[in-house]
Amino acid sequence: MKKVCLIIGAGAGIGGSVGAKFAANGYHAALCRRSDADGLQHLVDGIESNGGSASGHLLNAVEAGAIEKLVEEVEQIGQIEVVLFNLGAQIGNRSLEGTALKTFELGWQMACMGLFRLAKAVIPAMEARGKGTILVTSATAAVRGNAGQHSHAAAMGGRRMLCQSLNAEYASKGIHVAHIIVDGAVDAPDTLGKMLGAEMFEKLRETRGKEHDGLLLPTEMAETYFHIAHQHRSAWTHELDLRAYSDLAWWNHAP
Amino acid sequence: MKKVCLIIGAGAGIGGSVGAKFAANGYHAALCRRSDADGLQHLVDGIESNGGSASGHLLNAVEAGAIEKLVEEVEQIGQIEVVLFNLGAQIGNRSLEGTALKTFELGWQMACMGLFRLAKAVIPAMEARGKGTILVTSATAAVRGNAGQHSHAAAMGGRRMLCQSLNAEYASKGIHVAHIIVDGAVDAPDTLGKMLGAEMFEKLRETRGKEHDGLLLPTEMAETYFHIAHQHRSAWTHELDLRAYSDLAWWNHAP
Amino acid sequence: MKKVCLIIGAGAGIGGSVGAKFAANGYHAALCRRSDADGLQHLVDGIESNGGSASGHLLNAVEAGAIEKLVEEVEQIGQIEVVLFNLGAQIGNRSLEGTALKTFELGWQMACMGLFRLAKAVIPAMEARGKGTILVTSATAAVRGNAGQHSHAAAMGGRRMLCQSLNAEYASKGIHVAHIIVDGAVDAPDTLGKMLGAEMFEKLRETRGKEHDGLLLPTEMAETYFHIAHQHRSAWTHELDLRAYSDLAWWNHAP
Amino acid sequence: MKKVCLIIGAGAGIGGSVGAKFAANGYHAALCRRSDADGLQHLVDGIESNGGSASGHLLNAVEAGAIEKLVEEVEQIGQIEVVLFNLGAQIGNRSLEGTALKTFELGWQMACMGLFRLAKAVIPAMEARGKGTILVTSATAAVRGNAGQHSHAAAMGGRRMLCQSLNAEYASKGIHVAHIIVDGAVDAPDTLGKMLGAEMFEKLRETRGKEHDGLLLPTEMAETYFHIAHQHRSAWTHELDLRAYSDLAWWNHAP
Repeated sequence: MKKVCLIIGAGAGIGGSVGAKFAANGYHAALCRRSDADGLQHLVDGIESNGGSASGHLLNAVEAGAIEKLVEEVEQIGQIEVVLFNLGAQIGNRSLEGTALKTFELGWQMACMGLFRLAKAVIPAMEARGKGTILVTSATAAVRGNAGQHSHAAAMGGRRMLCQSLNAEYASKGIHVAHIIVDGAVDAPDTLGKMLGAEMFEKLRETRGKEHDGLLLPTEMAETYFHIAHQHRSAWTHELDLRAYSDLAWWNHAP
Repeated sequence: MKKVCLIIGAGAGIGGSVGAKFAANGYHAALCRRSDADGLQHLVDGIESNGGSASGHLLNAVEAGAIEKLVEEVEQIGQIEVVLFNLGAQIGNRSLEGTALKTFELGWQMACMGLFRLAKAVIPAMEARGKGTILVTSATAAVRGNAGQHSHAAAMGGRRMLCQSLNAEYASKGIHVAHIIVDGAVDAPDTLGKMLGAEMFEKLRETRGKEHDGLLLPTEMAETYFHIAHQHRSAWTHELDLRAYSDLAWWNHAP
Repeated sequence: MKKVCLIIGAGAGIGGSVGAKFAANGYHAALCRRSDADGLQHLVDGIESNGGSASGHLLNAVEAGAIEKLVEEVEQIGQIEVVLFNLGAQIGNRSLEGTALKTFELGWQMACMGLFRLAKAVIPAMEARGKGTILVTSATAAVRGNAGQHSHAAAMGGRRMLCQSLNAEYASKGIHVAHIIVDGAVDAPDTLGKMLGAEMFEKLRETRGKEHDGLLLPTEMAETYFHIAHQHRSAWTHELDLRAYSDLAWWNHAP
Repeated sequence: MKKVCLIIGAGAGIGGSVGAKFAANGYHAALCRRSDADGLQHLVDGIESNGGSASGHLLNAVEAGAIEKLVEEVEQIGQIEVVLFNLGAQIGNRSLEGTALKTFELGWQMACMGLFRLAKAVIPAMEARGKGTILVTSATAAVRGNAGQHSHAAAMGGRRMLCQSLNAEYASKGIHVAHIIVDGAVDAPDTLGKMLGAEMFEKLRETRGKEHDGLLLPTEMAETYFHIAHQHRSAWTHELDLRAYSDLAWWNHAP
């Protein structure tokens, strides 16, 4: 039975690329997303055509019991050694007035409560085995709030503190929690692409992406995700940032 | 009609002391707490016997519409110029396993969603008047997670990012948002006292409190809350910490 | 004999205003600056004409022994209860190539070594008396580096960590160290005015300052400096920020 | 001609291990340290016996012109593609009184000015070539001051802000600056070993190190250093932490 890398939030971006990277290195990649069974199958097929092992799972992460049930199912495929929590809650800029209570709550259900539920579901087995890795994709909003980011920042900021709490409680039991701050636009058709619309996304790709590597490339990010998951336990990273070389860090401004 | 200072979370601690300080300086103090009508009346009586103006309001902050209704009522008493969000979500140390989904959600409903709802309720009038102050009592858990603090840290970390988002959107419209990190034990019978139990609380008061000022004294904290709320708009503070002189800051350890 | 507030870096800005505020509240203000004896005398005269007590001292802070000698002299006037370290090292934006080793060293000698020397000079007497306050004016550069800020950021970043070290070692001995992050342009002719030149400074005052309070006003900042210095020891602030309401915080960008 | 990895501060610890890792992957490792020519030769021999290329250079980093001259010499061997600045300034805990001005200055000369000089020396060629990597080993003291750490924290805090300044100015020109926070004790005889003394160091190794991986192992850390230096420019890390799984992060305390 193969060791499993479980990806919560696997589209054609970070999630899919991390899945492919782990699958190329002997893991079974269990890929989960909310909808688009075709897109999901496409990712699975891509991995299998490269000789890897993968499975696709539709998952509504905010449904009661759904994450818990998924974890049980996937443990049947093999031991979950690595899990990537890759759900975001970015909804673009919304004024306070324009942010409904329901929206604010849903963002938190997905981005913060979702990780809490996942942690409760995967950690007991990891603790029993004395090892496991929980990778969490994060965003700039986890370290600073901004106008129009009420929902996103509140969800991601809570998630960051949750990661530190999990790390404090479980690192010494062999469970590696890593909080990866993605500080920039990712070349991901399933998230950024959908947010911007096809035309604007293609334009951004042409101007900032193509020759200039000005968008974060998911396949390259996956190299770092994989590295972090395989650090020796004497030298673990809990938090790191990732951005394109041509981008300013969030704490810098154009002059 | 008096200007109003609205206190969400007014017990015999920070909330009550801040209310008394503002009332002593010409504000009507609208004091809210979930239960203990007698304790609430006692705070109101105390203020009135000193010649101040106050009212008591029982409030279940997580009930749908409750905060919104309260704000409407209190605006009938006078313009809400200052609001203190003083609800916490500290439940003592709980392991991940020992933290139920319901507990985690309730902590967030109180500490994070509660502030979001309050902001949505009070800001429109403040924006129309071109001024207003939102003080938020925060805790060390807002800046670092810890073992057993999953619920508390996630709620407070989200709240801190929400404060930054509110500040980014509303400071230039004259609304002052301040995030006050209370980094230590407060000499407050209604919170710390209840968490520790009467006996242990008295003992702590004797050993660290009394002569040594080793517990944060709410009446002294209220001086800083009042100062922050009255800073000239050319020099506003968004974040500050408060701790007893004899305490180590959260980033320091005993040698 | 009066208690003394010693100001290292007293021009027509933060230093002068803080001196005036303390003098108006019963302190002797010992004002120090490097040059411009006339400007210094003008500040002293202003305080005295308001019935306050003040003295002016020319000080080359990077000269060996100068700070130490000054502290000795001023202790003859009265006990130094509060000291404000108000020297900056902002030299405008300089590329790495354009920043000479001498410049980098001088910035550090002023902004970081200067505080270390001051602390060594004033703390023994404060420790013996069981109380004292060290206020440190800081800048955004203490919390994030930026292009062209090599010298400034390195000096201020070191200074911030030094403040934390001093606080960790001396808070419990009654010495209050406060690190005040000034995150924006100050309406100060002697610093910003000289850096921008008279014409541009006046223009900035007209556009951002005057009606809009878009520059930090030193007299208003002084209110907060004074408040921090008089917090009860059960509730001390170690770090806080100050900015004009209309300014974005350093962690926010214009959309 | 080989590409070069230049190591400033190469003992039997991080520096030596990073040198060996890069040498095993096709780089010439130029190893520098202040003294102990034998130890240096031993590192070079070790690399060469594994088929790698290395050279040893004695360097007094605080001597005027020494770093600059070294960079010139090493560029004769091959293009410096990666440089690791690995000098520390940890001198153990010293009270403020026990920290001489000379000590404070020397710490800064080594840990902060040294990096500034190195950056000025290596960056022009890197900029001309459109690429280069500057790795900086850092410590907990860069992010929080502590009692007895006046010199160390001030030097490391300044260095961190300098790294951010360099990154802001040069990332978009292809120069990758990474600030690696080593948050724990490293299994390094040349630094920790000398600070603790042989006996205590061996004891620590037995109790926390050996079976438990409770000390950071330099050979494992080198894996991450190497990974960071080889990230694709679309996904660079500027800051990350490293600690042993069994250690608490600096922001956590034992309960």
